[in-house]
Amino acid sequence: MADPKHHVVKPYLVTRNLQPENQETPIQFIENDIIHNHIFYRRNHFSYPKLTYSNYFLPINGLVTKPLLLSMQTILQLPSKTVEVVLECSGNNRSLFEPKVFGEQWEKGAISQGIWKGVPLRTLLEFSGITDGAKEVVVEGYDLGKRTDLDKVISYARSLPLEKALHPDTIIAYEYNNQPIPFKHGYPLRLIVPQWYGMASVKWIKQIYVIGSHFTGPYQNIDYMYFPNQENDECAYPVTTMKVNSTIQKPLDMARLNTGKHVIKGIAWTGKGPITKVEISTDSGHTWSNAKLVDSNSSYKWISWSFEWTAEEKGIYTIMAKGTDSHGQTQPMKPFWNRNGYGYNAIDQIMVKVE
Amino acid sequence: MADPKHHVVKPYLVTRNLQPENQETPIQFIENDIIHNHIFYRRNHFSYPKLTYSNYFLPINGLVTKPLLLSMQTILQLPSKTVEVVLECSGNNRSLFEPKVFGEQWEKGAISQGIWKGVPLRTLLEFSGITDGAKEVVVEGYDLGKRTDLDKVISYARSLPLEKALHPDTIIAYEYNNQPIPFKHGYPLRLIVPQWYGMASVKWIKQIYVIGSHFTGPYQNIDYMYFPNQENDECAYPVTTMKVNSTIQKPLDMARLNTGKHVIKGIAWTGKGPITKVEISTDSGHTWSNAKLVDSNSSYKWISWSFEWTAEEKGIYTIMAKGTDSHGQTQPMKPFWNRNGYGYNAIDQIMVKVE
Repeated sequence: MADPKHHVVKPYLVTRNLQPENQETPIQFIENDIIHNHIFYRRNHFSYPKLTYSNYFLPINGLVTKPLLLSMQTILQLPSKTVEVVLECSGNNRSLFEPKVFGEQWEKGAISQGIWKGVPLRTLLEFSGITDGAKEVVVEGYDLGKRTDLDKVISYARSLPLEKALHPDTIIAYEYNNQPIPFKHGYPLRLIVPQWYGMASVKWIKQIYVIGSHFTGPYQNIDYMYFPNQENDECAYPVTTMKVNSTIQKPLDMARLNTGKHVIKGIAWTGKGPITKVEISTDSGHTWSNAKLVDSNSSYKWISWSFEWTAEEKGIYTIMAKGTDSHGQTQPMKPFWNRNGYGYNAIDQIMVKVE
Repeated sequence: MADPKHHVVKPYLVTRNLQPENQETPIQFIENDIIHNHIFYRRNHFSYPKLTYSNYFLPINGLVTKPLLLSMQTILQLPSKTVEVVLECSGNNRSLFEPKVFGEQWEKGAISQGIWKGVPLRTLLEFSGITDGAKEVVVEGYDLGKRTDLDKVISYARSLPLEKALHPDTIIAYEYNNQPIPFKHGYPLRLIVPQWYGMASVKWIKQIYVIGSHFTGPYQNIDYMYFPNQENDECAYPVTTMKVNSTIQKPLDMARLNTGKHVIKGIAWTGKGPITKVEISTDSGHTWSNAKLVDSNSSYKWISWSFEWTAEEKGIYTIMAKGTDSHGQTQPMKPFWNRNGYGYNAIDQIMVKVE
């Protein structure tokens, strides 16, 4: 009667929306640096696509010498590349912007990490060849639907500049954590773009094509643009590389603690890295001390950090975490506000009461 | 390969803490008025108790004529009572208090509802008899542990005044939604106290005893007290009956909508009821209109409501919902602030952008 499995205590995805499905990872409760696909955050623009897998082929066309139509068998036989990567939604922490920004109210969990295996996009483009004048590579997903601001049905599609498309770690992935990619995360093929925010890593790839101009799809020129002004589109620029960032996992925000020793722990990550320093303040930012960094094997992964804190006196404490990367980027006190709420990376902070 | 179950989109519990397990119901995404136990909110003070069910007996003692030790077989043979009940944690919406309150940062989902079947506590007390001078009935759970403010191990225990204990709808439940109560919700026996906040409905009942004084356990005299002052304990009084309240389920807060027709929907509930009116404002509270109430069969349940709204002009709208019950209680604009953050019942409000 007392089945032990009833006692299992585990976190779940945090639902932000179901139409389309947008759920975040319970990041405060993650102890692993490889996220199981069940709690990998889900970020969709549309309802899930309907694919027929039995005759799946990947077309590569546009400004190529030889257009290709690749079977899964062919793709699986090519030399593979495995990358361990943080994927962070550019809307992560959107709920924290002031003034408030409309759209999915992501908190800290629109981020996950794991092991992706596939074939470099570069390998495929070497097979197809690229003709003179090629500028960008567009990857289109099978997911499609209507937007509030356009009248026609739109597919989710994004481009990469040639340089990023040809980077040997930009892959067309077919495995996540040593298993076929779960359907909700892009089965059978998903683009994985290390260092960039997650919108670049197009799921359910329908086709790849090379173009000679700048791609102007709405997920490139309307969404996923930083618009610094509320009232006009001036000074806009595209969302690309992840900013240096960190998250406090423990203690929980607004927790009540005893006096004595506590471990403050969390993660830090950046686009162009690696993370070189995480500083912790337990006095609202007046003084800072270095957290202990746990070695990370890959510069594409987040790094775990911890800090031993002795709370000697009762009272209310504001605890902050500030990451710095090898390019000297440091988290700012205030985020860069932008109209659609992308790229939040202000110093993370929580409050606790010691009693 | 395209297994349809991979496309299922469903909400999960929202994790607030795992030690102890505190997770809330994804209330915005609930369409049913009976909550499946998998997404019934979980509120614990301690880790889960270890019980030996094979020889479970329920003792009833204290100021009784005849102390009892009841087997499950005996309890199951007594005349049963079934009640359909809202259970709301008194900390529901604690995260909304200003100034902020420490403790679990519950949002809107520390509330659930379902069908509880059991034997009236009154029936058991009629068997045991109650001696003169009896004032309260204490129900103690098997869950126990240490608190930050006391040095010894404490069991979770709460008392009811005799009048509430003898109410025919106050039951010792053994079934939830026609199944044995799930372990995490109090198996094998749980007290269910309709109309009161959830802290009264003690799980994993270890014993029941009748006392001649006011019970002073810490879950009665420290926690679950309204302390109106930050600095002192003056004017404190206990948390008991649920206040009139409502929640907007759709649209989601900070959603972006098209112009045109939208259904605003949600739920409303109260301790002493039923709900007689839910009013909606789409202009920040300047004007109010009655929502349509869906009939509820039991005054212990929440009522669903909906309101058809035509958003003709683009812009930002603040939508509010205000419930009123048959005792004339109405949700206030501002919540009654108290130091531990109980009984939040201010008018619910969301913002949407019509574009």
